[in-house]
Amino acid sequence: MALTLADMVGFLLPEMSVRLVGDPEMLIERLAPLEHAKAGELSFLSHPKYAPKLATSEAGCVIVSPAAQAAAQLRGACLVVDDPYYCFARLTQFWKRSHQLLAPAVIHHLACIDPLAQIATGVSVAAFVCIGPGARIASGARIAEHCVIGANASVGVDSRLSARVTLADGCSIGERCIIHPGVVIGADGFGFAQHQGHWEKIEQLGAVRIGNDVEIGANSCIDRGALQDTVIEDGVKLDNLVQIGHNVHVGKHTAMAGCAGVAGSARIGAHCTIGGGAVVLGHLTLADNVHVSAASVVTRSIFKPGMYTGFFPIDDNAAWEKNAVTLKQLHKLRDRLRLVEKSSLHSTENKVKKS
Amino acid sequence: MALTLADMVGFLLPEMSVRLVGDPEMLIERLAPLEHAKAGELSFLSHPKYAPKLATSEAGCVIVSPAAQAAAQLRGACLVVDDPYYCFARLTQFWKRSHQLLAPAVIHHLACIDPLAQIATGVSVAAFVCIGPGARIASGARIAEHCVIGANASVGVDSRLSARVTLADGCSIGERCIIHPGVVIGADGFGFAQHQGHWEKIEQLGAVRIGNDVEIGANSCIDRGALQDTVIEDGVKLDNLVQIGHNVHVGKHTAMAGCAGVAGSARIGAHCTIGGGAVVLGHLTLADNVHVSAASVVTRSIFKPGMYTGFFPIDDNAAWEKNAVTLKQLHKLRDRLRLVEKSSLHSTENKVKKS
Amino acid sequence: MALTLADMVGFLLPEMSVRLVGDPEMLIERLAPLEHAKAGELSFLSHPKYAPKLATSEAGCVIVSPAAQAAAQLRGACLVVDDPYYCFARLTQFWKRSHQLLAPAVIHHLACIDPLAQIATGVSVAAFVCIGPGARIASGARIAEHCVIGANASVGVDSRLSARVTLADGCSIGERCIIHPGVVIGADGFGFAQHQGHWEKIEQLGAVRIGNDVEIGANSCIDRGALQDTVIEDGVKLDNLVQIGHNVHVGKHTAMAGCAGVAGSARIGAHCTIGGGAVVLGHLTLADNVHVSAASVVTRSIFKPGMYTGFFPIDDNAAWEKNAVTLKQLHKLRDRLRLVEKSSLHSTENKVKKS
Repeated sequence: MALTLADMVGFLLPEMSVRLVGDPEMLIERLAPLEHAKAGELSFLSHPKYAPKLATSEAGCVIVSPAAQAAAQLRGACLVVDDPYYCFARLTQFWKRSHQLLAPAVIHHLACIDPLAQIATGVSVAAFVCIGPGARIASGARIAEHCVIGANASVGVDSRLSARVTLADGCSIGERCIIHPGVVIGADGFGFAQHQGHWEKIEQLGAVRIGNDVEIGANSCIDRGALQDTVIEDGVKLDNLVQIGHNVHVGKHTAMAGCAGVAGSARIGAHCTIGGGAVVLGHLTLADNVHVSAASVVTRSIFKPGMYTGFFPIDDNAAWEKNAVTLKQLHKLRDRLRLVEKSSLHSTENKVKKS
Repeated sequence: MALTLADMVGFLLPEMSVRLVGDPEMLIERLAPLEHAKAGELSFLSHPKYAPKLATSEAGCVIVSPAAQAAAQLRGACLVVDDPYYCFARLTQFWKRSHQLLAPAVIHHLACIDPLAQIATGVSVAAFVCIGPGARIASGARIAEHCVIGANASVGVDSRLSARVTLADGCSIGERCIIHPGVVIGADGFGFAQHQGHWEKIEQLGAVRIGNDVEIGANSCIDRGALQDTVIEDGVKLDNLVQIGHNVHVGKHTAMAGCAGVAGSARIGAHCTIGGGAVVLGHLTLADNVHVSAASVVTRSIFKPGMYTGFFPIDDNAAWEKNAVTLKQLHKLRDRLRLVEKSSLHSTENKVKKS
Repeated sequence: MALTLADMVGFLLPEMSVRLVGDPEMLIERLAPLEHAKAGELSFLSHPKYAPKLATSEAGCVIVSPAAQAAAQLRGACLVVDDPYYCFARLTQFWKRSHQLLAPAVIHHLACIDPLAQIATGVSVAAFVCIGPGARIASGARIAEHCVIGANASVGVDSRLSARVTLADGCSIGERCIIHPGVVIGADGFGFAQHQGHWEKIEQLGAVRIGNDVEIGANSCIDRGALQDTVIEDGVKLDNLVQIGHNVHVGKHTAMAGCAGVAGSARIGAHCTIGGGAVVLGHLTLADNVHVSAASVVTRSIFKPGMYTGFFPIDDNAAWEKNAVTLKQLHKLRDRLRLVEKSSLHSTENKVKKS
């Protein structure tokens, strides 16, 4: 099911300036990376550093910036836009929309929907879904197989829950969200009071509130708040297997990569990025535009935008072992260095005195 | 649905000494943190360091220790108890119990229960649950939607399995446990023998035995043992996305924060805490009362109680890069320092000789 | 349900040389570790370092290498083979096969199977499974409760999907694979283009292709590719809670322990091992036979086989704090050391000149 370049230009034009160099009727059969694209396939050059690949690419057409137009024309058709990567992103959406067979909005007869739930028109509910009393599903929402939506929970307009998402009692998801399989929203936060050698449960009386245009990756977990709500603001993107503790607040358009974890009551700013496997400890504050590298552990609040890192550099095992052993004496090495410095200074002073 | 302070005192009195300063008929509409609580809301002061917040809090009533009573009285009603945080924990339980509409114990007609399963009276089984032959569900247990309980598995009195928990064949959960959505108990441990370049599966013939009063967070996994059972003792609390390998033994009242991982055959003592994202390698022993900081990697057995830590301190990226690069030469730096020390000593000796 | 030693020898003989010292009719009631095995139980000695346990073991029979036969005979029956651990692995398989009651291959009446799905003969489909149009399930495959198999997805001969596995549209699993509960195969990769302060979704148009004899642990996630497919080759073993990003390629017989994460477009060789909690950053290449220690962060491509490590060594907290603080000045320490070295050299030169 090919699309023509003219189809694509027609999709893009209402929102961006785009120039087509080449035949508008060229059929595009696939989107592909520059190095694998063949004739009849559309690719993109997002960064000047990949320019050498452009000359050798067999792509039928390439999306390029004005700066790369000359080089691109030498090898064939191109779409010239200011931001090729964004243009490519939009075309993946156009491509998906043109190719996917969206099932009609149907309520499956094997879904268990409480009579007190409110399901808007145009909602799709798949087999084996459970929706509790007082839950509200807004129009255009699609609830895939095995989702469980608790009492008084709500899903906004056009949001999409993939298979077996759990949205617990009283939690809410905004509009146009995408929630991937296995996500758990609103499980109890991890709260206990120590008492006579055991842990006494603190019931988690808050909920989770998720804004609009949020995407949450497979098997990620967002806990409900202890007393207040856990809040995920508009446009936040979480990858797979991310853990968000209770009472956490994540600001707008912040993104977290896979396996990141944020402990309870942390407050993360807007437009932050948290790398894969990074850990943010509890009760900390991160300013807007803070970027944390993969696998780093944030142990103090960060009030200044910027990039922050903390992981042990990988090395071949033998070298690592030597350095790791020495690291355990680092403080002593510092003390020894001081001593040597003093002695060296002393010796210099002596020499100065002598002369 | 407000409760009076008298209701709360009535709930607490059988187990703790509590003194109410204020009007017993005051209505409490919510529990709230000190800095957000309003009139008609109950809060608590758990630690002296938060005392400054007490004076400015608008809370209708505050739970305080005897030491803080004088300050608390100045601003309004208070409940005076020896351990305010524990008291607060108990009141969250009272609050939840008073407010939640517990559905009657019903076996849903769309649950698949094997005729050879034993379901006690007063058990609740939700829609789309599957229970295998020989499984035993004790009285008061509640099995939420999409749980799968394998053949000969068992769930103890009053335990609660949230949506889509998997309890595999032959595994057991004790009494009063809380298992959050997506938990997998009893999947195969990760066991293979290398043979001619491939991995030969070692079938995992053990099971998982979980004690009483255990809580397990969303999407956590506890693998079945290879030959013996994996054991989680009474009162253990695991957060979300925690991984427990095969044959692991976790002692009583140990707690692990989110994304922690324990490799196969490790033996963790009682009353330990394992921080978020920490890793315990296989076949190690941790004594009772060992506390491992977040994101630390336990690579050797720890026989002495205490707090243990090991992660690279986070820094701004430029500083981290400099230090990380230098870290790769740390062992050489030590050698160079030794050389300087020798030379410095030599020079000192020379001077001593000369004088 | 005991088996005789003769049964076991009969199972092993077609593929390996095995010598039984002892009574072929001895009944074995269980397989057990050396230190716990009792009479009537079979154990194994896989490594010479455990030899001391052999003498004191009460096991009815022990699998040993020829080198340990003499010692083993002194205490009782033994099976002598070249590779005891592999032999033990095979016997766990024989044991499981002999003891498990494999339910007959039935299509449950509460499964939702699209009329356009192709289900071979001898396939087992459990309750509440959903299979989409165009999906193909090959003979001998077993699909457990709550699995969701998307449109045009495929499952190979004799593969086994445990409860609530999600296999998204167009993704494929090879033959004899074992997929544990909660696994998500084919959720969208984490791909966005930044645009005017928000993240624009890049639709993920690739799929996931999984080879033969692959095992994937509970709640692990493998994302679909952006344009090309994510590929897991034959014989790969992934533990629980592992994250594989989009476009990743994992070579044959590579194994990854729990909580490991591989970011997008990384290319991991064959016969590699990735330790628990380790992170491989995106777009990197790892050669064949690269071994990454637990909790290490791979930040550059590795072209040379070997063992690589990078995590901060754990220490008691007080020692760690001292060293961690000093680590932040490490680069400056190096500069100071240089200064001292110069000065020391200068002083030595001076002395040389003087003398």
